[in-house]
Amino acid sequence: MHIFTRHLSKIFTQPVLQINLNNLVENYKTLSKIIAPATPSAVVKDDAYGLRAAEVAKVLYEKAECRNFWVAHAVEGKTIVDVVPEANIFVLQGIGEDSLELFKKYQFIPVISSPEMLSYWKKHKIEGIKPIIHVETGLNRLGFRETDLKKLNRRDLQMFGMVMSHLACADEKDHFMNEHQLDNFKHIRQKYFPNLPASLSASDGAFLGKDFCCDMVRLGAAMYGINTAPYRPNQMKNIITLKAPVLQIADLPKGDFVGYSATYRAADNRKLAIVSIGYGDGVPRSISNVGKVFFESDKKMKEARILGRVSMDNIICDVSDIENLKVGSFGYLIFDDYTLDDIARDAGTISYEVLSRIGKNPRFIREYIAN
Amino acid sequence: MHIFTRHLSKIFTQPVLQINLNNLVENYKTLSKIIAPATPSAVVKDDAYGLRAAEVAKVLYEKAECRNFWVAHAVEGKTIVDVVPEANIFVLQGIGEDSLELFKKYQFIPVISSPEMLSYWKKHKIEGIKPIIHVETGLNRLGFRETDLKKLNRRDLQMFGMVMSHLACADEKDHFMNEHQLDNFKHIRQKYFPNLPASLSASDGAFLGKDFCCDMVRLGAAMYGINTAPYRPNQMKNIITLKAPVLQIADLPKGDFVGYSATYRAADNRKLAIVSIGYGDGVPRSISNVGKVFFESDKKMKEARILGRVSMDNIICDVSDIENLKVGSFGYLIFDDYTLDDIARDAGTISYEVLSRIGKNPRFIREYIAN
Repeated sequence: MHIFTRHLSKIFTQPVLQINLNNLVENYKTLSKIIAPATPSAVVKDDAYGLRAAEVAKVLYEKAECRNFWVAHAVEGKTIVDVVPEANIFVLQGIGEDSLELFKKYQFIPVISSPEMLSYWKKHKIEGIKPIIHVETGLNRLGFRETDLKKLNRRDLQMFGMVMSHLACADEKDHFMNEHQLDNFKHIRQKYFPNLPASLSASDGAFLGKDFCCDMVRLGAAMYGINTAPYRPNQMKNIITLKAPVLQIADLPKGDFVGYSATYRAADNRKLAIVSIGYGDGVPRSISNVGKVFFESDKKMKEARILGRVSMDNIICDVSDIENLKVGSFGYLIFDDYTLDDIARDAGTISYEVLSRIGKNPRFIREYIAN
Repeated sequence: MHIFTRHLSKIFTQPVLQINLNNLVENYKTLSKIIAPATPSAVVKDDAYGLRAAEVAKVLYEKAECRNFWVAHAVEGKTIVDVVPEANIFVLQGIGEDSLELFKKYQFIPVISSPEMLSYWKKHKIEGIKPIIHVETGLNRLGFRETDLKKLNRRDLQMFGMVMSHLACADEKDHFMNEHQLDNFKHIRQKYFPNLPASLSASDGAFLGKDFCCDMVRLGAAMYGINTAPYRPNQMKNIITLKAPVLQIADLPKGDFVGYSATYRAADNRKLAIVSIGYGDGVPRSISNVGKVFFESDKKMKEARILGRVSMDNIICDVSDIENLKVGSFGYLIFDDYTLDDIARDAGTISYEVLSRIGKNPRFIREYIAN
């Protein structure tokens, strides 16, 4: 019976990445309400965490009236200028020799985070652009320290259009760093930039209350469906479905090993499915022997454990208990009930890193869902 | 003095990925000698492990007379057809509904690894193409099991142009699996495919001796500079340099925390450098608090430990002991003395996964070195 159905299978080979832009827009709108009256803005750096900045920025511009976008590098800004004609594009890593021409051409707004970059800006100022000043409040990453701020004269202080900082522990509601950084930020604003709009929080800070929202919140991870407030259930909708076809179903005899370096040995006879996706497609190799692939069976999604090492193009999983599975069926790596947060937990990393990787391989069939 | 030189810095913001195609060609030629008289072939799947298949295939075709290329998916083959006009392009994941048209158009050669795919091929045969049959010898991944082979008739067996398998533990010279798989492969060749050319090894198997080389070896990881025979010193040349500019140098006061979730706390006053690269650029986040960035100082490369978590766009490292460092200086994440193998060791993964990730972000300045 099984043999019979197998030979009627359709055969597919390519992994498929579906990106639900409707849910993305809905997440953005939900977040906008949570942070109101602060202005929402969208973080589309890292090619929109691998999802293609142009696709993401376009739908936010057209369907959610987003007019403020953040990228990390000017070259990333270039990929969205055509789809967000009347928007501000802020460049977090700032301006330098390797990006000056792009800033001039497209009127990007640099984030200035060090005295050296400020000197550079003063030499290469662009007419009509007021940069953002990034101040350091506790993350000890980019930003003017107070010792640097003290050296600025009044004209320096007045050249900026906004002041920003960034939180270190905003995904932990009660972490002492949150209040510590908020206090530092308030102090700096009051002392150096009393009249300037301010932005402190990304989408994790959005859930910490109005004080943290200031004038503009930089919505990234939560908009992409990640739970940035993991101390409570996720309020965001999943936007990612990642699936790949079964290339082969085979018996695994008792005592046999599976995969590179033979890291799984069958204690009993099992049935294997070989799924056409691997770490080359951004699936974290650290889910080897730990992660799961899900298959539809009798209208339910059933979990199949990954056996052995994830390889570059293939994942092997245990489908002994899954009925009616055929070559050509699709295995799900990410979907509404096993989200980015779930695979990241199994991989021992954060959802941001998983998302940033899975969108980058050009060999996916990439489907954008938008009505 | 330090302050003085800082303010004369040039400012850069973008990470730079250099790919030495001369070394890649040299590695391919070295490997070709090691495996002779077997025919060398190049594995350029996964977009040449992220390095751009078209660039890699072109240089191997033109400067090393490579005429046999392996990709995982037909869509990957499409990216190289123009640069390797007279070559065989083998597609490891095989053929299906989602790729049939590409096979027809470009005369790709599918690797058939299951009875179901064979049925599909028989229905959609392409004139003039002899597919490869993939047989399973111990990896328990893709390939015909012997129970499947027994069901093939003589005409089935004669339709193939080559027989291949894949080793599980070839990077461990004395692993029992190597001889076990070789024996299985010999048995299957003799019994089912006595007159067919054969390919068993990838570039790890290349170092296991002539028996493992058969008629064609699939050169991938070693060609890209990875030590696929880690039980002895690497015979390959490094082809990757990954560097990124310092955006800021700052004091870290005793007792302060660094990075997301505050995972590093300074036991003493330190000096930090913020380097403009992160996991968004493919740097593994698992080198947080473990990995290193290297800086040129007095014509030597000095090691700076990464402090706190690697973030999406930035890495923070301890440069307390590095003299004359300036904003705009470059920190090296990968270079000849700290290679893919070294960063993978620090990241707790394999070099293949690191390489596969770092080439994929379009925001790099990407430089190909070729004479």
